Order: sequence, then structure tokens, then C-alpha cells
Amino acid sequence: MSSKSGFRYLTAAYRSQNVVRSGRRWLQEQQYRPWQLRSLKLQPLTPVPSDIEISRAQTPKPVDQLAEEIGLLPEELEAYGRSKAKVRLSLLDRLHAQPDGKYVLVAGITPTPLGEGKSTVTIGLVQALSAHLKLNSFACLRQPSQGPTFGVKGGAAGGGYAQVIPMEEFNLHLTGDIHAITAANNLVAAAIDARMLHEATQSDKALFSRLVPSVNGVRRFSPIQISRLNRLGINKTDPASLTPEEISTFVRLDLDPSKITWQRVLDTNDRFLRKITVGQASTEKGQIRETGFDIAVASEIMAILALADSLEDMKNRLARMVVGTSRSGEPVTAEDLGVSGALAVLMKDAIKPTLMQTLEGTPVFVHAGPFANIAHGNSSVLADKLALKLVGRDGFVVTEAGFGADIGMEKFFNIKCRASGLRPNVVVLVATVRALKMHGGGPNVRLHLSPSNLSLVAGGCHSNLRKQIQIAHLFGVPVVVALNVFRTDTQAEIDLVCQLAKECGASDAVPCHHWAQGGRGSLELAQAVNEAASRPSNFQFLYNKEKIRTIAKKVYGADDIKLSPEAEAKIDYYSQQGYGSLPICMAKTHLSLSHMPDKKGAPTGFVLPIRDVRASIGAGFVYPLVGTMSTMPGLPTRPCFYDIDLDPVTEEITGLF
Amino acid sequence: MSSKSGFRYLTAAYRSQNVVRSGRRWLQEQQYRPWQLRSLKLQPLTPVPSDIEISRAQTPKPVDQLAEEIGLLPEELEAYGRSKAKVRLSLLDRLHAQPDGKYVLVAGITPTPLGEGKSTVTIGLVQALSAHLKLNSFACLRQPSQGPTFGVKGGAAGGGYAQVIPMEEFNLHLTGDIHAITAANNLVAAAIDARMLHEATQSDKALFSRLVPSVNGVRRFSPIQISRLNRLGINKTDPASLTPEEISTFVRLDLDPSKITWQRVLDTNDRFLRKITVGQASTEKGQIRETGFDIAVASEIMAILALADSLEDMKNRLARMVVGTSRSGEPVTAEDLGVSGALAVLMKDAIKPTLMQTLEGTPVFVHAGPFANIAHGNSSVLADKLALKLVGRDGFVVTEAGFGADIGMEKFFNIKCRASGLRPNVVVLVATVRALKMHGGGPNVRLHLSPSNLSLVAGGCHSNLRKQIQIAHLFGVPVVVALNVFRTDTQAEIDLVCQLAKECGASDAVPCHHWAQGGRGSLELAQAVNEAASRPSNFQFLYNKEKIRTIAKKVYGADDIKLSPEAEAKIDYYSQQGYGSLPICMAKTHLSLSHMPDKKGAPTGFVLPIRDVRASIGAGFVYPLVGTMSTMPGLPTRPCFYDIDLDPVTEEITGLF
Repeated sequence: MSSKSGFRYLTAAYRSQNVVRSGRRWLQEQQYRPWQLRSLKLQPLTPVPSDIEISRAQTPKPVDQLAEEIGLLPEELEAYGRSKAKVRLSLLDRLHAQPDGKYVLVAGITPTPLGEGKSTVTIGLVQALSAHLKLNSFACLRQPSQGPTFGVKGGAAGGGYAQVIPMEEFNLHLTGDIHAITAANNLVAAAIDARMLHEATQSDKALFSRLVPSVNGVRRFSPIQISRLNRLGINKTDPASLTPEEISTFVRLDLDPSKITWQRVLDTNDRFLRKITVGQASTEKGQIRETGFDIAVASEIMAILALADSLEDMKNRLARMVVGTSRSGEPVTAEDLGVSGALAVLMKDAIKPTLMQTLEGTPVFVHAGPFANIAHGNSSVLADKLALKLVGRDGFVVTEAGFGADIGMEKFFNIKCRASGLRPNVVVLVATVRALKMHGGGPNVRLHLSPSNLSLVAGGCHSNLRKQIQIAHLFGVPVVVALNVFRTDTQAEIDLVCQLAKECGASDAVPCHHWAQGGRGSLELAQAVNEAASRPSNFQFLYNKEKIRTIAKKVYGADDIKLSPEAEAKIDYYSQQGYGSLPICMAKTHLSLSHMPDKKGAPTGFVLPIRDVRASIGAGFVYPLVGTMSTMPGLPTRPCFYDIDLDPVTEEITGLF
Repeated sequence: MSSKSGFRYLTAAYRSQNVVRSGRRWLQEQQYRPWQLRSLKLQPLTPVPSDIEISRAQTPKPVDQLAEEIGLLPEELEAYGRSKAKVRLSLLDRLHAQPDGKYVLVAGITPTPLGEGKSTVTIGLVQALSAHLKLNSFACLRQPSQGPTFGVKGGAAGGGYAQVIPMEEFNLHLTGDIHAITAANNLVAAAIDARMLHEATQSDKALFSRLVPSVNGVRRFSPIQISRLNRLGINKTDPASLTPEEISTFVRLDLDPSKITWQRVLDTNDRFLRKITVGQASTEKGQIRETGFDIAVASEIMAILALADSLEDMKNRLARMVVGTSRSGEPVTAEDLGVSGALAVLMKDAIKPTLMQTLEGTPVFVHAGPFANIAHGNSSVLADKLALKLVGRDGFVVTEAGFGADIGMEKFFNIKCRASGLRPNVVVLVATVRALKMHGGGPNVRLHLSPSNLSLVAGGCHSNLRKQIQIAHLFGVPVVVALNVFRTDTQAEIDLVCQLAKECGASDAVPCHHWAQGGRGSLELAQAVNEAASRPSNFQFLYNKEKIRTIAKKVYGADDIKLSPEAEAKIDYYSQQGYGSLPICMAKTHLSLSHMPDKKGAPTGFVLPIRDVRASIGAGFVYPLVGTMSTMPGLPTRPCFYDIDLDPVTEEITGLF
């Protein structure tokens, strides 16, 4: 046997073996089985090196090997390089009959400006569950915006010994989903302005003959135009049969330039695009108007990606997006612009979650990352659904809600769970000693760490921590408090937090050392979560009507709300348009339970002012604005990019953190 | 043996087999060997279906199989899904000693607005060479801009039975290179405006303490700041040792807002961004200015991607990019902004060419696509270099130059070959009967086809075709004329073109039927190219000095050039700055050999006006503007997107063409 024919024989044998295995595996998938996961060994160093050094020191498993270990079939995987792959949605059909695993949400107390470490807790927890307790578990994370990576924020792949690797792939481009959103969002914007120009410069007849051109002597409406005709109440399919009035109604969206709500986006921190004037070239014939750019993750299309539960659902949501209002007050949608099919085409790969791994070789889905202050700030419904099937009945899916629990968790329950139909089993509430001190009356932490002070810590536990636990209980879900330990925390502080958290109603409260130790440092948390998940959860939504007032009073602790005249008018308009049943996505600061960022602890005795109300109809929520939300970050005098570099020989990146 | 351990045994055997094969293959790669390419069968239909239907009817080979067939090692491949993969540049080291194949450029006569079909000829030619003549051959194509795909242009993957498949992957996102360029380009733009704001609102001292912050009590310059200090002639590394004057020089780029040449980009046809005013939000403190967006492929970073011959070269070019001029008249670079390392990081994957395949299963590199009117309009140097090694000594690499030969081919020779050091063997000059009729005095073709008319055809051959052949001969390269046959062409017309082309100096001239027949329809062309490539080529550059005048007179047929005062001043400024030796990239209409789009044939007796001169210092060329070039296309009243749709069940795309 020559080496070549030998190879062919082996390949053929391998293939037929594969067929047998696939068939058997298909049957196995219908019931729970623990994964045969080869975890990657960690040998934590002291002091803990930089995130990129830790990430680079660990060689990830080939992603196809990881996929095989967790029960994915080769044809369900689309590799993007060696360490990340998209997973096809057909998996949901294959595992349809498989029971879901347990669903765990990681939320935080009201954070300091430095954050509480929810992502590291999430990753540390799955490292502990999968690699140490040998329980199938998946982390489902948001894809970070690339813009802030070059500004002040640094990476978002976790940190220390609880990270997604390779962290540079996680933080840059990934599999292109945010780029696809940018392209789709901006195609809508270009279509809006071009359409206004063409309507302003052409007669009804000229518009009609261009919109419904004669091809080989025949005029036909495209399917997307028939949809528009139906919505206009014109039930005709022959272009020749339209009356002049119907033609005018059909060809003119008649957008009111002052009522266009659609903005352009870029995944760059470009503050000079916050407010701009467009259309100033002579070719645009004086059709100038003021508008602006948002950061790409603030696009409604990102919120849609996060909430869609199938390709068809995403396509329908994209078509429903309202981009502005006509001069007669009617909403104008992406479908009216004729662009919604093209948007679905641009987003067809973005809808598949991206598989990566933690430092200990356990699986992670990275998918969607809607802006937490004007959208709901949670990763995708589809990633959670896929992961819940993959872990199986006794496994765990751990996902994260942006900001504090009063915002991120509330939206996770009221918006994301409403869209998905999924029910959470446990909330992990992350706290730090430094934030508890702040809530107990200490200084607003930036970089310095205040000395041990048990009374400040106790004050924080009895105010903000207690309130956030109560919020979770409003929804009927048990809470495990995870104290994210810093090396400056004293044992007395740690013990006090764990004791008081339990007194405040937490099922359990444990210190976590994942940053310094990886999964081994989160073993106690993993056990507590496993225990809490075995108890019954009585999940319920918070509201059906009186939504804004219910959230303000029950969640934030306000006495009441006060609507501006503008907000009242918008609520009336949205009710008329039939949007009254949509859930609410509050746009409020995350630095306080109230609308006043400097009010720490658990403020009371305030009235929540609602400045304005907007709507993301495709995503499916109404968002009241409490104060001013920046939707485009800027660059500081010395952005991170000064330190970011690439070695052209080794191809190693430095300066990402 | 259980099925599981059996599988393990087979896997292990397969792996050790692989090691043996890799070692043997490594040795084989050092000499030429014909590929064992499994070509895909074509069964052309009549009438020819739409491009997307033809593309979808053919199942591409798995890209890793294609890669193996052409001698790539598994570790040199980074798959992106099943049908495309990036190829690592380490291949160039491995095949360093391998002789290059023959290098063929496909160019066109001055086109009608509908184009001459250069891409289809390129693809038809490699299908004929590889799948039919069994000669190793590679097509190297540009990645098309995504914006026009939704506007009027449709796809760019070839057409009919000469296409790159899957055509929807080719036309949308691909492997994200253009998205990476957009991100990098716009990071530079954000850095420019943010820096101007920070300089305008801070003292020297404040700027210095932020740009060189104290970290744990120590101030240090970053490497990129030391580079800037060196260029400023300040040879110090200790921040404390700078004099107040040196601090001021270091911290202030002092950009003149009226002399910023850097524009933002989007890969969307958004005409309303051609001219805009930015900085109008109150947070930008009145620092408003006029600027604009270009289409992403017009970014200098795209031109750099196309011309770089290594990661290090790309990084150096990115650092050298000039973004504007200081108030004292000094050029300000991306390195001065501190952003060039971050740009290299954003572009680290984009530098690897993407491997795809033709309808007949032969290999294609898709890589870079600089805008043909303000840049050089050719695909990447790196893709050509990789392909020339992969095909080996007697193989063929066929690449394409945008626009007519007077622009695309001239730039290919004078700019791309100068940068790469590669020498072309043959030019394939594409012509159509309809364009020749136009040059012979017929109407400017849009959609109607004029009837058979031998005298118009002869007129076109004796004017434009003859002149374009002569231009190729100026560079010492033999020409094969490829007549791209349409079904309305008569046999007498076809015969006449082939006869006259040879009389005008072509080595050969043949009709091509690739659109209707695939590679089989281009067999005659493949044989003619193989024959021409076996003859000696005496390639030479056209100019060393008097560059603009030489191009105008020798290539375009002008009597002379006339520089505007602005153009003269710029030429003097660029000479002072040391850019005098850079090659020239003419920005001229492609619809005529002259600057007047309606002058067809081979115009004479004109003086070429040079309105202005600009420079892309990182890319490495100076570009004189002959007339006004649009760098941002728009959307028509009824853009293509009306017909583009996605079936949510089958995931099939319709309406791309």
C-alpha cells in the first residue's frame, strides 16, 4: 500500500466511522449526557500578569475540537480562523426535544465607575462549573463594541485568570457581526436621505416609472412593494390599475425631515459626529438637515439581533423598524423604503452565535451587545437557546446583564425573557467591597482604595445590596451574592458582606477569587449556584400595564413619576399607533438607583422625571428617557491606542488590556 | 475494539500519516509540479440563467480540499466558513526558493459605461487554463465595494458561466477586510478631530501631563512618542528633561483645520455624506468644520493594503500616512497622532489574501480593491506573490487592471510593478464589438445594441484598440486581444476584429465565449496566452522624471499638459517635502483616452489640464486630478435593494446579480 493510497483508505475509513458516529450521536443528543470536555490546565502566577499576557500564555483548543466535545456536528459549525466559529441555527431543530439546562443570570449592585466585575464572575463561574465540578456549562456573553477598545475602556473579555481567549479576537472584529450591523444600519440611512431627495425633485409620474420600471415592456411590483400597497389599503397587483391618487400615495413616503429618528452609526468613538449637518454638496440640491452618528451597538438592528429568535423573526423585525414620521403623522418603516430584504441579507451570518472558549477550555457564546442605556444591554436570545440545549437538563447557562440589577436585570426579565419565553433559575448578584463602601457613605471610588471600614461596608449592604436583592425577589428568582474579592479587602470585610447578604435575603453569599485563581477560585460560587438552582423558582413578570410607574416605584424606589408634556404626547401617539403593549426599556443612569448619579445606597423620596419617550418598534420596546444619554463616546487626550501595537514578525499584539 | 477506541486509532494513524506527508510535500514544493486539481463539471444551459442561479446551482469544493489540491499546508489556512479561507503569509517563506509562474494582466480598451467584461474574461481564462488545459493557474481579483452592490452596479464576481462562487459571499462582507479598513480609517479621523479639540482647550502643561501620564509615580514616553520626538529632532527619552519649548513642540500637532486631507469612509452609497459639517454638538465646544465621507475603498488604507508586501511594510506605510498640514506647513502623520500601531492591529487579518474558487473549482485570490480613479485600481501585490509561488514555474497568475488600459494598465505597470518588483509576461486586452462601434463613431452605448456595422467596427479597431495595444508595447509587453463575444455580434464582425487587432500589433486576437460556455469557451484564449507567454518580454517602466507630461503625451496622446497655479504650488510643496520621486497615479475619466468623456476613439490635439495635485504618502503615490472625481456614489430612485431578499427557511438569497 503506497502512502497515498494508504491515506485514501484511512480517509474513507474515517468518513464511514463519522457517519456511524453521527447517527449514534443524534440519538444521544436527545437525552442528557455529561460532556467529555478536555479542560485546559491553568497555573496562575503571582503577581497576576496583564490580561493579554495571560491570554497569550494559554493555547486555545482548536474550535472544531471544542465543538465536538460539546456535541456539535461538523456540519453545524462554520469556522472563522482556528479559535472561533459560528454555530448554525439548525441545531435548534436537531435538539428540539432535548430539555433545557438551568438558566443563570449574573447581575450587579449599582456599580462604581470602575464596574463590579460581572464579566469576570460569569467566566470564573463557568470555569468552575465545567472544568472543576464537571457540570456542562456555557457562558453567553455580549460582543463588545470595538470603538471603546481604542478609547479608555480596554477589552471586555473578562480579566486575570477568568477570560475568553484569544482576548484580542474577542475584542477586535470577532466574526464581523457589528460590522454587518453598521452596514445594514447605514444602508437604511442612505436610503432615507436619497429617497427624500428623489421625492423632492421628481413628479409622481417620474417616481412611479422609476420605482416600477418597465422591463422588456412589462411593469411589475416587487414583493416588497406589494407589502407596502397592502399596508396602504391598495389591494392591487397590476401597476397599470392604480389611480393617480393611489400612485401618489404609493410613491411618496413624504418623510418629515424634522421627524426622522434614524441615525447613522460607526463602531468608532468619534465625538465630532454627535451632531452634524449632511447634504451640503451641490449634488444634493440644498436638501441639508441636521442629524448624527451613534456608536454601532446603539443601532436598533443590534437590539433586534439580540431579541430575534429565528431568521424569519429577525427579518420581520427589520421590516417593522420605524425610521421617522410622514408629514401626515404616519410611521414610515424600513419596508416602506424597500430595504428590509437587503438588511436580512446583510445580517444572515450575524444571526449565528460565535463559539469561543475560556482560559480553561470551556465553551462560550459571544453574540450581540446592545447598548445598555437606550436598549436592553443583554446578549442574544438565540445564543442562550442554543446553549440551553447543548448543556442539557442538568447543565448551566450563565449570562450577564449590563449595568446594575435595577437596569440590566429588570430589562433581562421584562424584555428579554418576555421575547424568548425562557425562565431564569438563579440570579448571581455581584458586589465589591469598594462599591459597598461607596453606598455606605464613602467617597465615589475612582482609582484609590479606601482602607478597611466595616461600618461603611455594612451601610452599603443594608442599602444598595438589600434593595437589589429585593428587586430580584420581586420577579420570584432566588439570589446568590458573589463578592468579587480584591487583594486589599480584609477578611473581616469579606465575612461581614457574606453574613449581611444572607440576612438581606440572599440564598447564599460567597467570596470569589477567579481573577487571581481562575475557576478554582470560584468553586464555592459554583456550588452555591448549583444548590440554589435545585430549588423551585417562581418567575413572574413585573408589569402588564402602568409600566413606567411600576418600574419607577417598585424597582427604583421612587415615590412617583413625572412626565414632561413631550413625553405625554409621545405616549399618546404610540398608543394610537398600537404600540401600547410593548415592554418598557428605561434609559436611566446606572450609577444610582435613582436618576441622580450621585445618590448612592438606596435613595427614597424622589420623583422620577421622564424627559421624553422614544420607541424601537422593530426591536419591540418603548424607551423613556430619564435625563440625557450619550450614544456616542469620545476619545480622551491620550487614548488607549498609544499603547496598542503589533510586532510585525511574531504578529503579537501589545497594549490591549 | 469499541467504535470509540477504533475512531481514536484511526485519528492517530491519520495524524502520523499527515506528518509524513507534510515533510514530503515541503520538499516537493521546492520544484514545479502540476496540481491534482479536481475540477467541477459545468453543464451550461441555454438561455444562460441569472448569475445567482448559476452560482447556486454549483456546489463549491470545501475550501480546505481546494487548498490541499494546490499545495497549501493545513496550518497555512484560516477558514472563514466552508467556501473561503485566508492564507497566511508564512507561505512566502516556505516557497521562497520556488520560481514564479507567468504573470498575465487583463486590461481593457476604453469601455462603454456598461464595461467590457474584464472580470469575466479573467475568470474564463483561468477556468480554461486550469480545468481544461491542466496548467496550474490562479486568478487574483479585487474585492468589490459592498456599497454599489445595493445601488446600481450589482455583483462583481464575474458573470454567466465565468464566476467566482459562492457569488453572494464574494459580494457581501467576504472575510471582513473592507470593514477593517473602515474601522482603521475612521479611527484616524476620530483621532484628528479629538486631538484638535484637546489642543484647543488645554495648556501645554495639561496636554503633556495627559499625553505622558504618571503611572505609579513614573512618567514614560511610549515607543510611538519616541518616534515622534526623533522626527522633531528631540533626542531625549526622559520626559523630565524636555524644555518648555520642546514640550510645546511635542504636544501640539497644531493641525490647520483648513488643510486636513483625511476623510471619513463608509462602505455604503451615501451621497448625503459627500459634504458635511461636524462638531455641532455643544460638547465639541464650537470646533465645527466642513469635511466629508468617501466610499471605503477610496481610503488610502485600501491602497496601502494593495501595495504592501509584508506586515512590516504595511505597518510602516500606515505610520507614514499624511493626514493634513500644521499651521507652520509641516505634514502631520498617523504616527504623530499615536495611532499607527492600533491601525496595524486592526489590519492584521486583512493583510492575508482570501482563497475562493471559480465555477469550475479552480483557485482564486480575492484581495484589496482600491478605487480606480483616485488610487491605482489593482488587487494586492501579496495575493499575486503568493499565487505566483503556488502555480510554480510553468503556471499562470492572471490578474485584472480596473478601467481602460490607459489608466488601469499604466498604473499596474508604473505603480504596482514598481512596488512589487514583479514583471508581467502578457497583456490580455479585452474588447467588445459594441465598444469598438462606439469608438468608430457610433452612439455612446447604454442599453441598446446597434446593428451589425463593419465600418464602425473597423474605425474602433484603428483608433482606440490600436492605441491601447501601442500603450502596452511602450512597456515592452506582448498583447493578446480577447474579444468578449455577445450573442448579437455577427461572425463577420468577430472575424474583422481579430484580423485588424493582429494588424495593429497584437500577438494574437481571439473570440471568447466564457459567459455562455465557461472555461471551454475560452480555450482559444488560453492557448494564445500560453503561446505569448513563452516569448521573451522586455518590460520597462515608462518614466523616471517628467512623469505627468510623459503619461499625458505617450499614453493619452495629448500634445502637452497645463498645470493650474494650485497644481504647480502643490508640486513644488511635495518636492520640498521629499515626495518628488513617488510615482504618479492619474485621476482621469476612464471613458476616454483624453480628459473629455465624450471623445471616443483615439483623440489627438488636446492639452491635458491638471486641476490639482494630491498625495497618498503612505500608499506611495502622487495623484494629479484631471477634472472632478466623485469619491462617494449615490443611490438611484429605485436601488437594487428593492429586489434583494432572503428566504428565511432555505436561507437562499434572491436579487443579487
